[in-house]
Parts: sequence; C-alpha cells; structure tokens
Amino acid sequence: MAEAVRLGEAARGRSAPNPNVGCLIVSSNGEIVGRGATALGGRPHAEAIALDRAGRKARSSTVYVTLEPCAHESPRGPACADLLVKAKPARVVIAMKDPDPRVFGTGMRRLRDAGIDVKLGIGRKAARDSLAGWLTRLRIGRPRITLKLALSIDGKIALPSGESKWITGEDARKHVHLERAHSDMILVGRGTYLADAPRLDVRLPGLEDWSPKRALLTRGEAVDGWEILRKPEDVYRLHDVNDLLVEGGSATATAFLSADLVDRILIYRAPIIVGEGKSSFGYVGLDAIADAHGQWASSDGRRLGVDRLEVYERVREA
Amino acid sequence: MAEAVRLGEAARGRSAPNPNVGCLIVSSNGEIVGRGATALGGRPHAEAIALDRAGRKARSSTVYVTLEPCAHESPRGPACADLLVKAKPARVVIAMKDPDPRVFGTGMRRLRDAGIDVKLGIGRKAARDSLAGWLTRLRIGRPRITLKLALSIDGKIALPSGESKWITGEDARKHVHLERAHSDMILVGRGTYLADAPRLDVRLPGLEDWSPKRALLTRGEAVDGWEILRKPEDVYRLHDVNDLLVEGGSATATAFLSADLVDRILIYRAPIIVGEGKSSFGYVGLDAIADAHGQWASSDGRRLGVDRLEVYERVREA
Ligand SMILES: NC(=O)c1ccc[n+]([C@@H]2O[C@H](COP(=O)([O-])OP(=O)(O)OC[C@H]3O[C@@H](n4cnc5c(N)ncnc54)[C@H](OP(=O)(O)O)[C@@H]3O)[C@@H](O)[C@H]2O)c1
Ligand SMILES: NC(=O)c1ccc[n+]([C@@H]2O[C@H](COP(=O)([O-])OP(=O)(O)OC[C@H]3O[C@@H](n4cnc5c(N)ncnc54)[C@H](OP(=O)(O)O)[C@@H]3O)[C@@H](O)[C@H]2O)c1
Ligand SMILES: [Zn+2]
Ligand SMILES: [Zn+2]
Repeated sequence: MAEAVRLGEAARGRSAPNPNVGCLIVSSNGEIVGRGATALGGRPHAEAIALDRAGRKARSSTVYVTLEPCAHESPRGPACADLLVKAKPARVVIAMKDPDPRVFGTGMRRLRDAGIDVKLGIGRKAARDSLAGWLTRLRIGRPRITLKLALSIDGKIALPSGESKWITGEDARKHVHLERAHSDMILVGRGTYLADAPRLDVRLPGLEDWSPKRALLTRGEAVDGWEILRKPEDVYRLHDVNDLLVEGGSATATAFLSADLVDRILIYRAPIIVGEGKSSFGYVGLDAIADAHGQWASSDGRRLGVDRLEVYERVREA
Repeated sequence: MAEAVRLGEAARGRSAPNPNVGCLIVSSNGEIVGRGATALGGRPHAEAIALDRAGRKARSSTVYVTLEPCAHESPRGPACADLLVKAKPARVVIAMKDPDPRVFGTGMRRLRDAGIDVKLGIGRKAARDSLAGWLTRLRIGRPRITLKLALSIDGKIALPSGESKWITGEDARKHVHLERAHSDMILVGRGTYLADAPRLDVRLPGLEDWSPKRALLTRGEAVDGWEILRKPEDVYRLHDVNDLLVEGGSATATAFLSADLVDRILIYRAPIIVGEGKSSFGYVGLDAIADAHGQWASSDGRRLGVDRLEVYERVREA
C-alpha cells in the first residue's frame, strides 16, 4: 500500500478536480504487474491505468488502491468498480472509503457482490494525508490551503528594505519546488508579485514542463494569465483546485490567517538571525497569549541542508 | 566515560571558577568503586572525591576522568595527579588534555612516569561540550554565553502589550529550570526585571536550594543582590562564571548579539502564531541577507511536550 500511496502522491497537484489516487496490482506469484495514478486533469483513473497495464495478469491478483474505487459511470469513462469486477482480481485492498456520497460504500459492495475479497483500512492515515486537498474540497468546498514561508530563527521574512534573497539554501528551495509541483494552484499577494516577479514555476529535473496555475490576491487591476482573488474567501469558488499553496508575502499570509483559511503551514527555517526586518505576519486577531494555544500542531520536521522544514497543521474540531 | 561526562555535567553551573569535571573508578573486576564531580565552588576536585570513595579499591582499577588531572599543588589541596600516583590505578582514561598552561600534558606525564597506563581522547567531544563554559573562560577570558528565548513560530517574544506568559508549556519551562541549574549566573535586562520580576530560581525537585547568581543589564540604579552590568562587554570581568545564561528581553538580547557576545542560542519554540507583537531582536548590524549566513549552526533539536527546543551554536574561526 505504501507504494500505492507513493504513486498517488506523485499525482498530487495534477489530478484536480479528481482525487490523486494511486493503484498497484500484484499478481498471485508476487510480481508487480500494474501501476497507476490519476492522470492529468483527473482521467483516466488510477485503477483503469493499472488494470490496462496488467492486462490478463490482473486475474487472481491483489489490487492495492488508496481510495475506494468509483461506482458511478460518467460520460468520461466507466466506473472503476465495474472494470475491477471484469478483471477478476482475487482481492482488493482499499486504504479508505470514498466520502463522496455518490460512492460511499457502493464501490466496495459491487466488488464483494462479484465475489472479490475486499479489505479496508490498510494505510488509511498515509492515504488520507496524501488526499487531504481533495478531501478538504469535498468536505468544506474549498482547497486545502498551505501557507509557505522562508523564515529566520527570529521569524523575519525580509530585511527592512524588502531584501529576502536568499533566506534559505539550495535544498530548502528544491523542496519548495517539489511542493509547488504538488499544488494545483499557487497564490501570492500583489506586493510579492511586484517585488519578486516570481515565476512560480517548478524548477526540478523532469518536472520543468509542469507548472501549477497562478493566482494573485489584489483589490487592484487584474494581470493576464493570473487568476484574480479579491479576498481570501474567494477560494470557495476555486472548484478545480485541491491543493492551494500560498507563498506570501506578509500581508497575504496575515489575511489568510485572519480569515482562518490556512490548514497547513510550511516553515523553511534558516539558521540565521535577521534582527530588524519584516515580520512574518501582522495582527491576526490575537489579544491574549492563551488564545494562541491549541490551534496548531507540529506534524513533521526535517533537515534540508543547513535549514529545517517545520510542518504545522491546523487543529480543528471534527 | 559517558558516565563520567554525566557526573561532570551534573556539576555544571556549580563548580566555577573550576571546570566541572566528572570521574568514575572501575575496579579490576568491573565494579564501580568511586564516583566524583567537582564540588560546589571548585574543591575538592572530581578525582579526589572519587578516590576517597574508592579507598583501597582504587588500586589496579581503571579511572575515567573527563579532563587531564591537575599537576599543580594549591593551598586548597594536593594535585590530583599526585593523588592518583599514590592510589596506584592500572589505567587512567582521559577525555581531553587540560588546555591550562600550568597543566597541559604535565598531569599525564606524571602518571606515565609512575608506570600508570594513560589513554587520551575517549569521549573528547562530549567532555568538551560539557566543559564549554570553563574552556571559553580559559581561552577568551569570559563566560560561555547562552541566550535563551521562548518564541512563537513567527519569532515573537510577547504581545504588543508585553504579555508573554506563557508562550511555552510545562516541559519547556522545566527544561529552562534545568538550564538555569547548569548556569553559574543568569542575566536579564532592566525591562524584563521590571515586567516579570523574575525570581530566576530553579524550580526542580532536589534543586530548589540551588540558584545561580543573578545579574542585571542596566545603565540605571543598582539593585540589591544583583550583579550589575553596565554593558555586555562587562562579562569580561565575571571571573568566576563559566556559564552565563542571558534570559532577555529583546533589548538585552539585541545588545549581546550586536556585541557578538553570544556563543549559543536556545530557542524554545511554541507551535503558536502571535502575529503583531514584540520581535525577538532589533537591529543587530545586518544590512544584507548574505551576511547572515554561516554565523550559526543548528547543533541540537528536540521535542519538549508540544514545544521544540532548537539549539544553535556560533560558528567561529578556530
Ligand atoms: N520569506 C518569505 O517566505 C517571503 C515570501 C514572499 C514574500 N516575501 C517578501 O515579502 C514582501 C512582500 O510582502 P507584502 O506584505 O508587502 O506583500 P504581499 O502580501 O505579497 O502583497 C500585499 C498586497 O496583497 C493584496 N492583499 C493583501 N491582503 C489582501 C486582502 N485581504 N484582500 C485583497 N487583497 C489583499 C493587496 O494588493 P493590492 O494593493 O493590489 O490590492 C496588498 O497590497 C517582499 O519583500 C517579499 O520579498 C518573503
Ligand atoms: N519570550 C521570552 O523568552 C522573553 C524573555 C524575557 C523577556 N520577555 C519579554 O520582553 C519584554 C522586555 O524586553 P525589553 O526589550 O523591553 O527589555 P530588556 O531587554 O529586558 O531590558 C531593557 C533594558 O536593559 C538595559 N539595557 C539594554 N541594552 C543595554 C546596553 N547595551 N547597555 C546597558 N543597558 C542595556 C536598559 O536598562 P536601563 O533602562 O535600566 O538602563 C534597557 O532599558 C517583556 O515584555 C518580557 O515579558 C520575553
Ligand atoms: Zn474510478
Ligand atoms: Zn585536580
């Protein structure tokens, strides 16, 4: 299942509006006979691709898939549950049920009715993490929003002059490019657009041709080729964005935090002290330290060269 | 040797002006027969205490000691090298040579001349880390200076009102008390003295009675019971302080950083966002981001409850 999640994760940022599903097919003698992930734009589905690769070797195999196979036909293709029934695997291992009400449970039922052994829940956490963008959109009607900042030890994003190149090193910047590749859309405020003229592209070997859509937060004039958001709440009309990456600057980050429209924060922390400089955020509505607690949980951390990535996730009541 | 370092580390903050040495004696049949660490105020030495505990069992034993035994007699007691020669251990394992020119190599020579097997260098790095305060004082004539800050993700030390209680949780605050216990002196600026009226005591079971000396950075009136520093450079006259802990606030931290008088930074990082608030530091002399790099290296990091301790050490040319 770990390999299926990896396949699905690789499709994150390119599968919207569909989920970035991963699928792996292992024949009865232990050979990997098919791999698939949701294709660019959402079709074909991961299972369809993996089954196509496996061909007749899918018979009696074990199919690993990160999300319950779909059960509704669409003008763009047949339901994956039906494709699986036709391929006759011995077993289908599913990481998590599809919360989409059109599917919820029916995909699994169709497989079981056809005599296929179905196992649910293996690798659920990893699959849910990888599908977080799509799940957020399904549940609350907007993308999963990640705020990214490159900060000094003392939380500065730039010198008073605005100079911010470069706070972090090579490895951290490479990781940012990877994170961009896994976002459907990247947003900056007009200030950053003007200061850094960011190309917001993905400068990674093999991914140069892949760049997510670009959005600008501004009350001013529109810019050609950029999706324009007039306010953070406009994220609710981004219907085919699972993962939105907010890249700054300070005013934009503050606006998103104030609106409680950040689900995840990526801090690329450099071992430097800036001192006097531009703070990460302005007033975000906090009037007592006690109220700041319990909103964020550190969920991951890792070294990137001399820098360190800190990941925080918004704690919300279920 | 790890146990000897641990013994020495426990004495850190109470042995000044002497080094916080640790000593362990293991008899020829593998039994621990003596433990010692530099006593409060520097005497007796670790070896003297451990040899005293071991008594006649020290004969033919292996002695582990974190620093080369002293070779100069003093009105306050005999040289440890002589005590060791008299006790006749088979072997003395030393983590590092004593850089004190009065000792350097002569302690080891005296042991070897008496037919004792001497091994040098085992556990050197750990011993050097533990003895960093004393080594700094010996080398450059001032304490090793550690700056401690409790910060939010965005590097704030307080709300605009000055409210800073509590940024970090129970576990982080406990660790601060431990760090205090391992400091000979704690320093705050007048602002923090007035705002927090910090008792700067050590609230840890078994250590309540142990509190380091207290110092105040101020150009104003002296305060009873507090050592007064008029400027950061006054640290050069603190002759019996190995480890100095600077606890803030922002102006004081900035003054020490600007004078390049910080060797180590402890950041207790809480997973909270403060937004508008007091920054960690003011202008520290930085005018270009590029100049900020290479000055600090992350040397340690660990989780403390929901918070995280980040340790940075000043990178200086040898
Ligand atoms: N270290 C880092 O990670 C990092 C990342 C990015 C940027 N930076 C630095 O940050 C600086 C730019 O930051 P900044 O705060 O000045 O600019 P910014 O956030 O990039 O842009 C500010 C602009 O965004 C628009 N905006 C902000 N809040 C809005 C809201 N609630 N509704 C509608 N529009 C809104 C406004 O545009 P209009 O005026 O057009 O209406 C505003 O002028 C630059 O120095 C850049 O180098 C650092
Ligand atoms: N989060 C944390 O870790 C933390 C830690 C400590 C404090 N705090 C907060 O920080 C705030 C206090 O910070 P602060 O910056 O206002 O005050 P501060 O640094 O504690 O004290 C400032 C005072 O220190 C003296 N001083 C500073 N630099 C000096 C220099 N170069 N030479 C001589 N004296 C110097 C001056 O005293 P005189 O005016 O008497 O000459 C100055 O007014 C409080 O809100 C406190 O709660 C937070
Ligand atoms: Zn499907
Ligand atoms: Zn001695």
